[in-house]
Amino acid sequence: MASVIPASNSSMRSDRNTYVGKRFVHVKNPYLDSMDEDILYHLDLGTKTHNLPAMFGDVKFVCVGGSPNRMKAFALFMHKELGLEEAEEDIKDICAGTDRYCMYKTGPVLTISHSMGIPSISIMLHELIKLLHHARCCDVTIIRIGTSGGIEIAPGTVVIMDIAVDSFFKPQFEQVILDNIVTRSTELDKELSEELFNCSKEIPNFPTLIGHTMCTYDFYEGQGRLDGALCSFSREKKLDYLKRAYKAGVRNIEMESTVFTAMCGLCGLKAAVVCVTLLNRLDCDQINLPHDVLVEYQQWPQLLISNFIRRRLGLCD
Amino acid sequence: MASVIPASNSSMRSDRNTYVGKRFVHVKNPYLDSMDEDILYHLDLGTKTHNLPAMFGDVKFVCVGGSPNRMKAFALFMHKELGLEEAEEDIKDICAGTDRYCMYKTGPVLTISHSMGIPSISIMLHELIKLLHHARCCDVTIIRIGTSGGIEIAPGTVVIMDIAVDSFFKPQFEQVILDNIVTRSTELDKELSEELFNCSKEIPNFPTLIGHTMCTYDFYEGQGRLDGALCSFSREKKLDYLKRAYKAGVRNIEMESTVFTAMCGLCGLKAAVVCVTLLNRLDCDQINLPHDVLVEYQQWPQLLISNFIRRRLGLCD
Repeated sequence: MASVIPASNSSMRSDRNTYVGKRFVHVKNPYLDSMDEDILYHLDLGTKTHNLPAMFGDVKFVCVGGSPNRMKAFALFMHKELGLEEAEEDIKDICAGTDRYCMYKTGPVLTISHSMGIPSISIMLHELIKLLHHARCCDVTIIRIGTSGGIEIAPGTVVIMDIAVDSFFKPQFEQVILDNIVTRSTELDKELSEELFNCSKEIPNFPTLIGHTMCTYDFYEGQGRLDGALCSFSREKKLDYLKRAYKAGVRNIEMESTVFTAMCGLCGLKAAVVCVTLLNRLDCDQINLPHDVLVEYQQWPQLLISNFIRRRLGLCD
Repeated sequence: MASVIPASNSSMRSDRNTYVGKRFVHVKNPYLDSMDEDILYHLDLGTKTHNLPAMFGDVKFVCVGGSPNRMKAFALFMHKELGLEEAEEDIKDICAGTDRYCMYKTGPVLTISHSMGIPSISIMLHELIKLLHHARCCDVTIIRIGTSGGIEIAPGTVVIMDIAVDSFFKPQFEQVILDNIVTRSTELDKELSEELFNCSKEIPNFPTLIGHTMCTYDFYEGQGRLDGALCSFSREKKLDYLKRAYKAGVRNIEMESTVFTAMCGLCGLKAAVVCVTLLNRLDCDQINLPHDVLVEYQQWPQLLISNFIRRRLGLCD
């Protein structure tokens, strides 16, 4: 078991980090610094009501995922893996005053849920990035861990994303700003993805690959499912679309990666997306895995990220 | 207090209904009926594991809203208002096996949370519509109750939507199907909105109006907020946009109404959207209401819908 990392540890070993010097999280908003108070409404936190540097200043890793229960499980898992002294029952939801998101802090690791879809993760990211900025965090790595539908790969495979593409297989995110459409790049730090891939090799029998992740606005019609309340296309059209996606390099489909990479990229956060696939979409549309298999699959990304963080912290042999 | 309505009541008084005959909820998917089993994954329900007609066959009203806590509060409120015999502690979350959505049933009223944004409510609606279809529900009215930002109206005003418009003030919803963009109408049943407006007049000092609701994909840049992690426009551009929205008939802004009206319209559900405004966006961007005021504002739409349902059920004098 690893040695104890105090929550306020500032002498973290960074010899395995791929970057040097302090890289602060930066907001891109000239109005922000002139605000007397910043209320992070959906996180139930604020600059006047909370001492954000004291609460979050030592955060080095942020892990986000859709499901509140899964993110709580990850926080408890990290707590154990980091060998923290604090009692498990002291790991409380920092955002307990709101039911929009939940948030846990275990040593230098902040874990947050973002619910489903681009708009929901976008609200969380705006407020999270401001939080990290107000808390004067530096050298922060952010990783989304989630579930996804796979294309032509076995269920249970973990896809480490090399780039996020939209429904048209383009590596971009269209952001509506007022009534203009602005196209943003979804490029991310390749080194981080490679570091994660190398890390996965150290875990025995870890089913993983690097590939494109497609991000859609919709789970049913937008992902070519034949089992929604609405379906206006044929099975052939569905398969044609998914095969074209595969040919374009897409290995899995989820609903948050484009805005996640676009926003993190703009704000100086090194980001990665690691999703396990729950089904092969060429075979079926419905997720009908037994509960224990589902639980096992969902643990794969958590295991990888835990190993990665421990390695970064110099806690692995 | 109203008389008791048993959960399985089938002799509900409908003399004040504006429609006649049985209007079933219809799915538009030729593949659905040939499926051996339909797993409503994000609701943790299914056609083989649950007797959906027995559980939901008597549903006449569906109320949806973003926050799980608020929807639970609404279910408890409806339970009291309908004078149901069941003990309050027996009102359990029907979707307790998942943390994606929560669902409560109080007599003929089904209450469900949908979290924030178009993708999240869209997943819920696909599975809810299939649920109502499998349960052979008929003559169902669905109402979204929520919070929103107002334009040029006092905080605390309840906006009964006459039509949902997108960020470009157009009454349409763009649905990506495979890699095609399909434009759907957001027109809704005007009679229902008018019935709700008439109903509101019976509540003393009820601050309400009918207007367009604008639905965006983003809370910050997409709604012209100057307080996000990213902001690339000036205060003048923000005000110009919001004033143009007002001129186009928009009175409030939220994040779900276009897909909600488009999907309900296609599936034969009479739908309405009733949102209270928490701030006047011409004055500010941040929600900084005292907790008690926020709670009071959020109760307005609930009060209106409760009165409407009681009137429809013939429980009002």
